[in-house]
Amino acid sequence: MIAKTIQPPYYAVIFTSIRTSIDEKGYQNTAEIMDRLARRQEGYLGVESARNELGITVSYWSSTDAILKWKKECAHMAAQLLGKEKWYEDYRVRVCKVEREYGLT
Amino acid sequence: MIAKTIQPPYYAVIFTSIRTSIDEKGYQNTAEIMDRLARRQEGYLGVESARNELGITVSYWSSTDAILKWKKECAHMAAQLLGKEKWYEDYRVRVCKVEREYGLT
Repeated sequence: MIAKTIQPPYYAVIFTSIRTSIDEKGYQNTAEIMDRLARRQEGYLGVESARNELGITVSYWSSTDAILKWKKECAHMAAQLLGKEKWYEDYRVRVCKVEREYGLT
Repeated sequence: MIAKTIQPPYYAVIFTSIRTSIDEKGYQNTAEIMDRLARRQEGYLGVESARNELGITVSYWSSTDAILKWKKECAHMAAQLLGKEKWYEDYRVRVCKVEREYGLT
């Protein structure tokens, strides 16, 4: 689903990652839990995700403060640690300000 | 591949799309040509792409001027038109300023 976001400006976190081949089930479970948890965060606007060799998850937020709170959320911090230790071979996090947007319709 | 970008600030274009089931071959051909063409544009920094039901392509640029020039590049404009007419059921383009980034290493 294409995220239904607000009028810019708002914020995006582009999370690009390459998975290890370790613990697919644990990774999937945690990803689902994190997805549900993120949706309940204040300032959450939406998420878009796709994965082939490369995984891209873009989450949208109303402010950098909301992003920081999500980064420091307790269960999310535990998931980040497991991500670093076993799930990701490599990743990059880019925090962006969405300045303008347009679509097909 | 995770794009090797420069120190922020720089720019990102998040292109999120849902394909029609029309003309997969023509779409793939044009996507490859556009990829090669984009890499030769001034100000191009890199690209990341993944597709399941949803497709996400994030291209990185040194300036909004570089993004505008790529948007108006002749062959790219023709491809955009075909995209609107037959390849995409829906899409969203978000132009962003990357303010900070970090990775695993």
